[in-house]
Amino acid sequence: MKRPTIADIARQAGVSKVAVSYALNDRPGVSPARRAAIKAIAEEIGWRPNSAARALNGAQARTVGLTLCRPARILGVEPFFMELISGIETELSTRSYALMLQVVTSPEQEMEIYHRWWGEGRVDGAFLVDLRFADPRVSALKELGLPAVVIGHPSAAGSLTPVWSDEAVPVRETVEYLAALGHRGIARVAGLPDLVHTVLRDQAFTAACQDLGLDRHTIMHTDYTGEEGARATRRLVSSPTRPTAIVYDNDIMAVAGMSAAHEMRLDVPGDLSIVAWDDSPLSQVVRPALSALTRDIPAYGVHAARTLLSLIDGEEVEGVEDRAARLLPRGSTAPPKEKTPPVPEDGEK
Amino acid sequence: MKRPTIADIARQAGVSKVAVSYALNDRPGVSPARRAAIKAIAEEIGWRPNSAARALNGAQARTVGLTLCRPARILGVEPFFMELISGIETELSTRSYALMLQVVTSPEQEMEIYHRWWGEGRVDGAFLVDLRFADPRVSALKELGLPAVVIGHPSAAGSLTPVWSDEAVPVRETVEYLAALGHRGIARVAGLPDLVHTVLRDQAFTAACQDLGLDRHTIMHTDYTGEEGARATRRLVSSPTRPTAIVYDNDIMAVAGMSAAHEMRLDVPGDLSIVAWDDSPLSQVVRPALSALTRDIPAYGVHAARTLLSLIDGEEVEGVEDRAARLLPRGSTAPPKEKTPPVPEDGEK
Repeated sequence: MKRPTIADIARQAGVSKVAVSYALNDRPGVSPARRAAIKAIAEEIGWRPNSAARALNGAQARTVGLTLCRPARILGVEPFFMELISGIETELSTRSYALMLQVVTSPEQEMEIYHRWWGEGRVDGAFLVDLRFADPRVSALKELGLPAVVIGHPSAAGSLTPVWSDEAVPVRETVEYLAALGHRGIARVAGLPDLVHTVLRDQAFTAACQDLGLDRHTIMHTDYTGEEGARATRRLVSSPTRPTAIVYDNDIMAVAGMSAAHEMRLDVPGDLSIVAWDDSPLSQVVRPALSALTRDIPAYGVHAARTLLSLIDGEEVEGVEDRAARLLPRGSTAPPKEKTPPVPEDGEK
Repeated sequence: MKRPTIADIARQAGVSKVAVSYALNDRPGVSPARRAAIKAIAEEIGWRPNSAARALNGAQARTVGLTLCRPARILGVEPFFMELISGIETELSTRSYALMLQVVTSPEQEMEIYHRWWGEGRVDGAFLVDLRFADPRVSALKELGLPAVVIGHPSAAGSLTPVWSDEAVPVRETVEYLAALGHRGIARVAGLPDLVHTVLRDQAFTAACQDLGLDRHTIMHTDYTGEEGARATRRLVSSPTRPTAIVYDNDIMAVAGMSAAHEMRLDVPGDLSIVAWDDSPLSQVVRPALSALTRDIPAYGVHAARTLLSLIDGEEVEGVEDRAARLLPRGSTAPPKEKTPPVPEDGEK
């Protein structure tokens, strides 16, 4: 079956193609009754103006693009991207925009896709995620002229428009909370070390620990998988300077870390307090439920989409700072168990 | 910045637009040296044939569509769809096809989107997921003429091409395994009751329990969230005919169910054996690790995409039956604890 055309409408209505075109475009020269009849037939047979014809006339693709350069197995288990996409979709659908999604394996392939999408008129704009410092995609996109929103910190967005949230504030809030509970040894199990938000969190973590005089602070980097989260946890709790609290960069690693602790007969939170980042439902279904840095990720997607659509409309757009994540204590954090004080050898007090 | 055009190439090369067109289309009338120079300039400034122009000439959109009619919060936590999309992308990218993704809130909105996508020439084909019996989308898509692959059982696919895996075999394998361990009371915590694959699993579960003479079998339906998985578990283990094993329709519900059991001081697997469906990394990071029905979901996506691309190419395509899920026992299943035999009152043996 072929797509319905103006010729089909003309045949069914028993009028010329020109009359159909006039009627559908609300131009004079067709009687109101005939116009109504023609529009009814067009509706009935499912006729739509062809997007290709509209695009040639300078109309928009009404589509925006998102590429993800992460291994498939991580995308499957990291709720962040699917929640972000849900939010993006929510905003796009109110404006009848579609989302073009592509998983890539390298930044080179990603740029190749932007070139193709933009050159072929397939998208009107794009989202850039997982920013690195001095990210070559930023300058390349600027040069390409493709309207783009960086979902990430302004310091890495160059002259592109950023939508971001503060990474330092929630890290400091978490370290201060754990210190107030009495923890002196706090570790951070972080994500990929070359991502901007990882570096910003690393810096905030180290600064907060130093300010509070916590000298036993450690950072270990991972690939965000549960396996590496568990491995980092085992190494940390086996070390001579075992931390009493660990903050993880996502919740699958926090769940895996808690399981590793349980396997090693450690009590959570008695022997080890655990804080997760990205508070998906996962944090709430395990026992103890995970204390977590929570934020509204779908809303983040909504704001990013709204900003991109404004850019596409040619508006002057400032970057948007979203709400920072906030700490939601649940059952996985508590004061560290008191060590039994050593008995003085000579009986003195 | 505007998209580069043939006029831009002509200006930079110092030749006519006709010469550029001849060179880019490999037609005679341009010297090999000039052809090479023109192509180099086109490459340098990022020129691509406009997809709109190609579409008007009857070329394809080189895009396929997928709509998901599920609440955003479920998409975020259910690894299934992101793994399926990863697989679809893997196959599409080898053919330079893109995926158009849209989250919808009703079947009516979904059909409206197919009409728009197809009518406007935005997609060459689509995937249909979450099939129901007598699904109105099947006949509507057939009528529309949009090439479509049903990711679901042939019994619900009408005359559309299905890609599916057997649901009954893994259900029976699981029930037989649990019965062999000594379980007599087995419950199934299922997903949405009107989805085809839920009904097929329900039927297989009931039939397998009856064949094995297990009279204490129960099915409870949920919305796939951890909350409903936990609630169903609490109700089941609080009932007078408490099951000793529960099979869940996804892994977030299985994890939530295990947590609910632990809260009620039940030992897993001693007091309660647990089996998860859809073996994401989540099943492996909790303790005990979950026995699960495992399958290669990205491969399922690859097969679905390959089938759709064949359909779009106008090939005669048969449905594809994928490998059924198979049971992978881990630490969450074991023989039920022996009840202490009642002491005979009169001392007789």
